Amino acid sequence: MTETMQIVLYGQPVMGYRDWLARQLGDCYQVHSVGYSASADEKALALQTADAVVCVRYDGDLPPSQRLRLVQVPGVGVDEIDVDAMPDGAALCNVRGHGPGAAEFIILQMLEWRQRCRDAEASFRQGSWAASSRFGAPPRGELFGSTIALIGYGEIGRAVADRLAPFGVKIRVANRTPIHDADRFDQAGSLAETAAIVDGSDFVVVCVAMTPDTRGLVDAEVLKRLGPNGVLVNVARGPVVDENALYQALRDGVIAGAVIDVWYRYPDADDPNQAPANHPFSQLDNIVMTPHISGWTQGTVDRRWAEILDNLRGLRAGEPFINLVKPAGSS
Amino acid sequence: MTETMQIVLYGQPVMGYRDWLARQLGDCYQVHSVGYSASADEKALALQTADAVVCVRYDGDLPPSQRLRLVQVPGVGVDEIDVDAMPDGAALCNVRGHGPGAAEFIILQMLEWRQRCRDAEASFRQGSWAASSRFGAPPRGELFGSTIALIGYGEIGRAVADRLAPFGVKIRVANRTPIHDADRFDQAGSLAETAAIVDGSDFVVVCVAMTPDTRGLVDAEVLKRLGPNGVLVNVARGPVVDENALYQALRDGVIAGAVIDVWYRYPDADDPNQAPANHPFSQLDNIVMTPHISGWTQGTVDRRWAEILDNLRGLRAGEPFINLVKPAGSS
Repeated sequence: MTETMQIVLYGQPVMGYRDWLARQLGDCYQVHSVGYSASADEKALALQTADAVVCVRYDGDLPPSQRLRLVQVPGVGVDEIDVDAMPDGAALCNVRGHGPGAAEFIILQMLEWRQRCRDAEASFRQGSWAASSRFGAPPRGELFGSTIALIGYGEIGRAVADRLAPFGVKIRVANRTPIHDADRFDQAGSLAETAAIVDGSDFVVVCVAMTPDTRGLVDAEVLKRLGPNGVLVNVARGPVVDENALYQALRDGVIAGAVIDVWYRYPDADDPNQAPANHPFSQLDNIVMTPHISGWTQGTVDRRWAEILDNLRGLRAGEPFINLVKPAGSS
Repeated sequence: MTETMQIVLYGQPVMGYRDWLARQLGDCYQVHSVGYSASADEKALALQTADAVVCVRYDGDLPPSQRLRLVQVPGVGVDEIDVDAMPDGAALCNVRGHGPGAAEFIILQMLEWRQRCRDAEASFRQGSWAASSRFGAPPRGELFGSTIALIGYGEIGRAVADRLAPFGVKIRVANRTPIHDADRFDQAGSLAETAAIVDGSDFVVVCVAMTPDTRGLVDAEVLKRLGPNGVLVNVARGPVVDENALYQALRDGVIAGAVIDVWYRYPDADDPNQAPANHPFSQLDNIVMTPHISGWTQGTVDRRWAEILDNLRGLRAGEPFINLVKPAGSS
């Protein structure tokens, strides 16, 4: 196998890594980049000889690619990959490594929900001591003693549970498959038991893969069981939480609040300021809204590109891929 | 001992607990409250028969109190208690219980320093996806892999170290006395070794009691050793960190930044908007300023008043005090 391997970075989220990747891979590889908005001819030219494509999105708009053996997603979610559009000889792989960054985001958001430090910072910087204990300000909350339900016990769920173990909290887990360390937890069960596991929690963290089974898993009934003191944290995919039910629950005080990092609509080149949802969530004061940043840390990026490099080198060396989502020839 | 015990709540931070405390203590106690700004006669009347005073501040302005057997501070710091002004028959006690709340504050602040979520929240609420990973925004930081130096290993230091154990960080500790679990840490030493222990850390958490030995412990030399990537977190007492050195280090980039919760000047009735320092820290953009709120949580308050109740009941029952700082008759 002395031929030069052709690697294509497709789309804005990955194009910036071309020079770095070329340096890492060395002379036996050529690395190209093609934007989402490139012409059909440009895409055809790049894909025609590609051995691997690194991309978030792969759909029927892409021209045929006879040689393609690897579609490498640079994140964990493969929901924008249309496997039916992939050439039969190509495998699909994702990457992980987002556990520490995502867990830190989730714990940060739960701590801030309790402590409300930013309010105190803002008023103090303006010169007011009103938030001070010395002025008899009401005390803040703490996570200690809280009950936290994790919906999903993959890389993120485990990273959260591990880190929260010394925080004096009770943890419940709902997962698609039975978990081996259920006795660590206050309660554990299947996704079918989500409503019972969520019931009366202080926080629910949604960190389950989106599949046809989990779309709408957190519905009006689950939110009602979470109840008026409960806070929903969603870092999975927007539609795992039913949008109408979430908006109504926040608006009507069915739940106390939410931290939402993943959305129902995403921007594209035509509409870079696309609203993230069909309801006006930004008009509510009991929601923290972030633009899909949980886990988006330098550490995650470094760990992920190290795994991408492993797969691209493995492609040439004939080694099995890591993080295989769908093997070649299985569609 | 059938006499009614007389309890005085002295000063604004404690006066609001009078009714609650009276209910808890029952018929064998009378609970009075006196403000800092009460007249000398009012203070004299209250103190004359007091068996115990609950207060943050005790100084020579207070009239003599012959019966006084307990000065009970409702927090951990006794730096506003002039023990020489206390009657000889009175013991001095503090309370703890602030470990969970303070540790959560510290971890929250370190996580936010790395993740900078609030910037992303603010721009996203205004409708911009610019902070999103989907738009190629630069990745955020994470605590994972950081080195954290704890100056002081009392209730707060231990609570932080316990909680950070699963975060994938390196922890160093400097403490007045040798610690029994030094082998948990990357490095451990005495306060005299502070500069070496701080050297090149990502975060330094100052959580040591203020004493003549620790005043100014964190000086220009220590801040220089912390260095341009290091962040100082002070939840101890302001003057443990030299004010001039801190201001200059922040202004000149000697350190990356600071989270300062404890200050050099505090407001009083005459000047409720007293500036917290002699330097204009609020004009710097690499400092997070909070008005003495770390550990000021409902959980802390509940745990502390439970301990205060124990001591006030113990006073009548003739039981030894808990959290004794200075026994009676020892001045």
